[in-house]
Amino acid sequence: MSNKTWSGRFDEPVSELVKQYTGSIDFDKRLAQADIQGSLAHAQMLHEAGILSAQDWADIRRGMAEIQDDIASGSLQWSLDLEDVHMNIERRLTDKIGDAGKRLHTGRSRNDQVATDIRLWLRGEIDLIRNLIRDLQTALAELAAQHADAVMPGFTHLQVAQPVSFGHHLLAYVEMLGRDDERMADCRKRVNRMPLGAAALAGTTFPIQRETTAKLLDFEQICQNSLDAVSDRDFAIEFTAAASLLMIHLSRLSEELIVWMSPRFGFIDLADRFCTGSSIMPQKKNPDVPELVRGKSGRVIGHLTGLLVLMKSQPLAYNKDNQEDKEPLFDTVDTVRDTLRIYADMMRGVTVKRENMRAAVLQGFATATDLADYLVKKGLPFRDSHEVVARAVRHAEQQGCDLADLALETLQSFSDLIAEDVFAVLTPEGSLNARNHLGGTAPEQVRAQAARWLAQLA
Amino acid sequence: MSNKTWSGRFDEPVSELVKQYTGSIDFDKRLAQADIQGSLAHAQMLHEAGILSAQDWADIRRGMAEIQDDIASGSLQWSLDLEDVHMNIERRLTDKIGDAGKRLHTGRSRNDQVATDIRLWLRGEIDLIRNLIRDLQTALAELAAQHADAVMPGFTHLQVAQPVSFGHHLLAYVEMLGRDDERMADCRKRVNRMPLGAAALAGTTFPIQRETTAKLLDFEQICQNSLDAVSDRDFAIEFTAAASLLMIHLSRLSEELIVWMSPRFGFIDLADRFCTGSSIMPQKKNPDVPELVRGKSGRVIGHLTGLLVLMKSQPLAYNKDNQEDKEPLFDTVDTVRDTLRIYADMMRGVTVKRENMRAAVLQGFATATDLADYLVKKGLPFRDSHEVVARAVRHAEQQGCDLADLALETLQSFSDLIAEDVFAVLTPEGSLNARNHLGGTAPEQVRAQAARWLAQLA
Amino acid sequence: MSNKTWSGRFDEPVSELVKQYTGSIDFDKRLAQADIQGSLAHAQMLHEAGILSAQDWADIRRGMAEIQDDIASGSLQWSLDLEDVHMNIERRLTDKIGDAGKRLHTGRSRNDQVATDIRLWLRGEIDLIRNLIRDLQTALAELAAQHADAVMPGFTHLQVAQPVSFGHHLLAYVEMLGRDDERMADCRKRVNRMPLGAAALAGTTFPIQRETTAKLLDFEQICQNSLDAVSDRDFAIEFTAAASLLMIHLSRLSEELIVWMSPRFGFIDLADRFCTGSSIMPQKKNPDVPELVRGKSGRVIGHLTGLLVLMKSQPLAYNKDNQEDKEPLFDTVDTVRDTLRIYADMMRGVTVKRENMRAAVLQGFATATDLADYLVKKGLPFRDSHEVVARAVRHAEQQGCDLADLALETLQSFSDLIAEDVFAVLTPEGSLNARNHLGGTAPEQVRAQAARWLAQLA
Amino acid sequence: MSNKTWSGRFDEPVSELVKQYTGSIDFDKRLAQADIQGSLAHAQMLHEAGILSAQDWADIRRGMAEIQDDIASGSLQWSLDLEDVHMNIERRLTDKIGDAGKRLHTGRSRNDQVATDIRLWLRGEIDLIRNLIRDLQTALAELAAQHADAVMPGFTHLQVAQPVSFGHHLLAYVEMLGRDDERMADCRKRVNRMPLGAAALAGTTFPIQRETTAKLLDFEQICQNSLDAVSDRDFAIEFTAAASLLMIHLSRLSEELIVWMSPRFGFIDLADRFCTGSSIMPQKKNPDVPELVRGKSGRVIGHLTGLLVLMKSQPLAYNKDNQEDKEPLFDTVDTVRDTLRIYADMMRGVTVKRENMRAAVLQGFATATDLADYLVKKGLPFRDSHEVVARAVRHAEQQGCDLADLALETLQSFSDLIAEDVFAVLTPEGSLNARNHLGGTAPEQVRAQAARWLAQLA
Repeated sequence: MSNKTWSGRFDEPVSELVKQYTGSIDFDKRLAQADIQGSLAHAQMLHEAGILSAQDWADIRRGMAEIQDDIASGSLQWSLDLEDVHMNIERRLTDKIGDAGKRLHTGRSRNDQVATDIRLWLRGEIDLIRNLIRDLQTALAELAAQHADAVMPGFTHLQVAQPVSFGHHLLAYVEMLGRDDERMADCRKRVNRMPLGAAALAGTTFPIQRETTAKLLDFEQICQNSLDAVSDRDFAIEFTAAASLLMIHLSRLSEELIVWMSPRFGFIDLADRFCTGSSIMPQKKNPDVPELVRGKSGRVIGHLTGLLVLMKSQPLAYNKDNQEDKEPLFDTVDTVRDTLRIYADMMRGVTVKRENMRAAVLQGFATATDLADYLVKKGLPFRDSHEVVARAVRHAEQQGCDLADLALETLQSFSDLIAEDVFAVLTPEGSLNARNHLGGTAPEQVRAQAARWLAQLA
Repeated sequence: MSNKTWSGRFDEPVSELVKQYTGSIDFDKRLAQADIQGSLAHAQMLHEAGILSAQDWADIRRGMAEIQDDIASGSLQWSLDLEDVHMNIERRLTDKIGDAGKRLHTGRSRNDQVATDIRLWLRGEIDLIRNLIRDLQTALAELAAQHADAVMPGFTHLQVAQPVSFGHHLLAYVEMLGRDDERMADCRKRVNRMPLGAAALAGTTFPIQRETTAKLLDFEQICQNSLDAVSDRDFAIEFTAAASLLMIHLSRLSEELIVWMSPRFGFIDLADRFCTGSSIMPQKKNPDVPELVRGKSGRVIGHLTGLLVLMKSQPLAYNKDNQEDKEPLFDTVDTVRDTLRIYADMMRGVTVKRENMRAAVLQGFATATDLADYLVKKGLPFRDSHEVVARAVRHAEQQGCDLADLALETLQSFSDLIAEDVFAVLTPEGSLNARNHLGGTAPEQVRAQAARWLAQLA
Repeated sequence: MSNKTWSGRFDEPVSELVKQYTGSIDFDKRLAQADIQGSLAHAQMLHEAGILSAQDWADIRRGMAEIQDDIASGSLQWSLDLEDVHMNIERRLTDKIGDAGKRLHTGRSRNDQVATDIRLWLRGEIDLIRNLIRDLQTALAELAAQHADAVMPGFTHLQVAQPVSFGHHLLAYVEMLGRDDERMADCRKRVNRMPLGAAALAGTTFPIQRETTAKLLDFEQICQNSLDAVSDRDFAIEFTAAASLLMIHLSRLSEELIVWMSPRFGFIDLADRFCTGSSIMPQKKNPDVPELVRGKSGRVIGHLTGLLVLMKSQPLAYNKDNQEDKEPLFDTVDTVRDTLRIYADMMRGVTVKRENMRAAVLQGFATATDLADYLVKKGLPFRDSHEVVARAVRHAEQQGCDLADLALETLQSFSDLIAEDVFAVLTPEGSLNARNHLGGTAPEQVRAQAARWLAQLA
Repeated sequence: MSNKTWSGRFDEPVSELVKQYTGSIDFDKRLAQADIQGSLAHAQMLHEAGILSAQDWADIRRGMAEIQDDIASGSLQWSLDLEDVHMNIERRLTDKIGDAGKRLHTGRSRNDQVATDIRLWLRGEIDLIRNLIRDLQTALAELAAQHADAVMPGFTHLQVAQPVSFGHHLLAYVEMLGRDDERMADCRKRVNRMPLGAAALAGTTFPIQRETTAKLLDFEQICQNSLDAVSDRDFAIEFTAAASLLMIHLSRLSEELIVWMSPRFGFIDLADRFCTGSSIMPQKKNPDVPELVRGKSGRVIGHLTGLLVLMKSQPLAYNKDNQEDKEPLFDTVDTVRDTLRIYADMMRGVTVKRENMRAAVLQGFATATDLADYLVKKGLPFRDSHEVVARAVRHAEQQGCDLADLALETLQSFSDLIAEDVFAVLTPEGSLNARNHLGGTAPEQVRAQAARWLAQLA
């Protein structure tokens, strides 16, 4: 048997350059465990279907156990001559157990084998990522509960809009991450379908029992069309799209952490262990981690684009192009996993500077809407009250003071509906407490939402 | 009341150039129906909550009915001075019914209003798109049922791999579209959540009842955090990602239709009404529709990229950047809808040239795997039988004939396990029928799968 | 003559749905002027080459002049039945002048015609865009010259790093725009090559003189390969890539304007005419224009992605996919043009709040590097002096004061190399002036750079 | 001196997780040669400017020479604790030569250092890539010259359009690659500018002489603004955009090679050493290399998207996000370089099957345009002759024969302008030779173009 399993009809060997260009063992070896797991289930099914003898099945189990030991001990040498993880393992198996190893590939092809491996592997990574998402949600919800009554400026257009609870602000990200978790769960349904049995593209002439293999491998469904089974990379794209949205969310939170930690804002501080300094400016303490996370959103979006381009216009069934699905997928998983892990840790080390947040609320007429609502409740149509308050704000701005600093008579010069009770609605805390409905920023609501999440995440 | 609802504190009016640059009425007017629907539900809730009088509520209903008539008759003039669809409708309403119109905006803001409008609108479009996906699946499954026993070359690497059923090939796309439909359904769950009540970003001081509004508008859930509610554009991105995958699938089918219709292949023909000619080459009949579909995959992927870039690094809560979400979303919906509609029609006009397909099967040793399987069943390990067949193929290639054309003795010179019964497995039909398991290409399986789909789609 | 110029071999007319799906007249009519310009040059060449009679040539000139009048007056009705701008104009011409109109298409095809039209059109747009870039550079350089000595915190990681001149900061963007202008100029070279004469894909059998046409149309070069000429869309992609970089630059400046205008920063104010208010918060003045610009960077990057996907894997020569090149290209041009125009205007309306900038410099130990450099000049190796200053900063931070506020003895406790003259280097102005080399932030350098640019842009 | 050069003001060390997340030594060590080259020039300048003593300068040269030996011998251990390549080399230098090593960083920062390193490195890679482009052009032009008179069907819409020379078809790609080379050259101009001297962001207080350093390092220009110098990543994006276009071109050629090698086409064959087989289908010979190249276009486009997202909205000056520029840039360079290298080799191993190409020309009425032109030359307006030929084609199609197979009388039944001489224009070779103008497909033109390119590339 020659070195290449397919070389019987070739006149010349593959050139070294081509071997390196087309080989995947450098990166697909991380699928080794999934590959062995899939092979064992395939072999058991072959045995139960009467295609493989009891002896062969026993040999294969023994050989694979040894290979797992070899991998664990680092003694297995991956060979570029054997192209990929599948051939490396199969060759090693045949070296160990002889002909039974050659029979393992009966009724399957590398096309359905690799599709099965990636799905098995990705399924596990999704479960891990979902746990990490939930851990980050927990860190955020705990911080939110702690700061439900910390008042900070709610911004729109980065201009002071209305006072909000810092806890409320953090819970917005818990919601986003909740959707990310939902998307991962939805994606997992489509990952968890078994291509094995599609063989090269058309199925096999052996009497395989796909339900058996699926059950052994915990697949929820079986791919119903062999051509689709070997050519489908939807699951990788859908996962990367979900990962992109997750990274977008973290890019937004990172942007905010960076702005909040800038001295002009001074809303928070990050623990020193998440920051680095400068080789030239001795005073610097830089929020490196959120900056890198923000930057890494580009990386994941880039992988998504790359995968979409990869699949565009590909005819059925399998084409070598598809080998290019792995590196972007692997890097997306690594990036998301490392980022989530470090983020939860980092959020647990955030120092909140409540006094600076409150001072900032007083810098932008944050309670102007409260004044408008006050007038509406006294009978003025909303659009008219809006206009009244706009004039009052303009006056206060010219005076260089906040609305609450204007004298009652001055306020009354804009509308005679204004009375002494107006000052209660003009404080940040009054404004906060008044938004006391489902989804509103009142501390009472924030505490309830944080509690709801923490119960759900526990 | 000045022209601009927010102009009380401004020294100078917005410049004409800025008006055009920032105005959205040119494209967001297509949200008019959703805007009115949302406003009516909001008004009813305000009334039920005791915030709006019965008279106001009646006036608003009357005014909105008139505006709907105005839109239907084309008599409503959209004004750029009024920026967007929301202000245009509200101003028109106030013109018609006076102060009640000004009270409609109580307890909400354009930030939660627009988020609600887009979700209402997109929800309806998703339902329409899902119907169109299912119609295309039906067209494909019907054609598949009709051609379950048409044999064509199954390609990998665009090289002849194994015989497959043309119906089987078509069903691969039915599977892909099935996943697209699933993703649309999953996305719809997250679209169908109500932001209304978030007001500008923090909720409102009015005693609103969000459950009431949600029920009136058929929203399944209510956004639980006001900051998230106004800043979340996940649903648009998730939809566009699902649409990108759908377009990728259609780009692949289009690529195949184009190749199959090329004279060297000659597998199919498209009806004349889907083709165009050339201004200079009188003989041309061009598959314009699949080519455009293939090209339009770029358009939708571009929109996905654009939306991801749009949201990257945006701080909470609402920023004007978000206005840029609409045009890519609208164009994605239009592209997907028009494409699906024309595609189902086009597939119903496909002529299948079975004889050319069968001729092509005989051009690439399509049954070599069948010979290898034959040898395995006679006891040879798979890897060894693969090698035997490779040598036989090489010999046949040098002879310029197919495997089935070799004499029995010649075949036996490669392995003495080969007997007279080998010729049964070397025909395309024999090969097809032998892959008779779940997901395999045997006509029996193909008919069963087509029937399953048609029952489900009915 | 039938309605369709290519209908002779078709059994059935194109369906209405297909007509709409494949028609381009809705968007390609903006190429009308370029189309006429190209046709006139083509006709003149045909005449000079003896292919077209003097009478025909005269008739074509007359007919085209009338059509230009019809377009100008709006009386020309574009017809979807005639597919695109080329057929619309040719048909109108034939209606006006008879057979000479039918002869115009001799020796060309729509494939080379449309490629020529887009290049002519884009060439003009690039020239316009380059002027607009230069106008924005001028606005920035003028503001820079005016504020060469305004001291603001230079940020890295959004932490205060070292004092910089506000003018210096603005000039960074002048440099970026300078590179954008260079890229536009480089791209123009490749746009300005003539595909005409490639005909459908292979050239023509008529004795055309391509040099003549190129000269008439001011093309610098002639496409040397007919297949490449009709299938090349590099120029559109290269332009969109250059436009993407330009928009990235403006997204960065926009981000800064938005942050600087946030009340916690308060470094600048935008003129009211570039801002809008809120429908619910009467105090708001929002930097809508920079926010939209930031958002529109996504739009252009999306178009770039879309165009790359469009061209991926397309076989030669012309495919209908290519019709999809126009809308993204048109929208990119419009977006860039409108954005540049409004941006120059907006920068001329920026109010600079120098006092806030200077106050911010004092908040982050901005002159720590100056102290380190001071010690190096006294003989300490840089790495050691960095460490000394880090300890001094830490002490000052604990004291809640700036380095300049520490007593001399305190400073000396960190290093006995420190003497009375240290205080000169600890002021923002001292720091600024000390960086007086090519590219440094010293006001003298800033003034020189601004002057250099203004001279070059004049 | 502590381990971290910036640790003096930090309370706790960076966590291990953060070290790994933020460290770049794993990938930026490939900049080591550029880093040393830049440091040596910087040191020489410092010495010439009187900032560094002769002894220090000599020590640094000696130390760096030793480090280069250590790298060459593999004895240098890169440490993650030292973050990046710059600190690793500097620390090693200080270990070797003491205080002089600490003085090397005088007047610079890692911000301008890393920007300089990448540019030096990329400049070299661009030169290499340009050579590889030219080598591939040479391979293509040589093949083109050899097959100038090989007739193949020119396709539009993958339908047979007109006969073209196979050499002409190949030269289309030589033109595309020519533009890629131009873009690389244009990009190199902007890469080859020196940021060194910008220090952290504002320049330095030391009397540096940037012209000296620039000259030593062969930089054509000096970055004129320090803020821009450290924050600009345009060059990486522009390079990646140019690389994307290059990969798009190769994806198109790859698509064609794959289609041409498919048995139904059978136009070419690739040498065995560029193909692989199948683990299950013994007859397969797969064009893996062009498929992978087609797939890898996605990878590079993904990197472009990622880099654009990375830079979007980043405020000045340096942010840690920018560290994410390296991996996509490195991978783009590697992908382009390896792809070009293998492609030139592969094209030199292409077997051309002229007989199949010619047979295909006869399958699609490829000379219909020639007949139309023939009629025009006899006086019929082009549009009318087009119609005549369309009817003739339809008739021939119904007869199942080519135009050249129709009897003269039959042809004359469509137009009495047709005479015996018509058959000369209906042969593929006649058609080819008739397109004998600049850029046309006549073999004479093809030979001239191939010769022009080969002379230029020599």
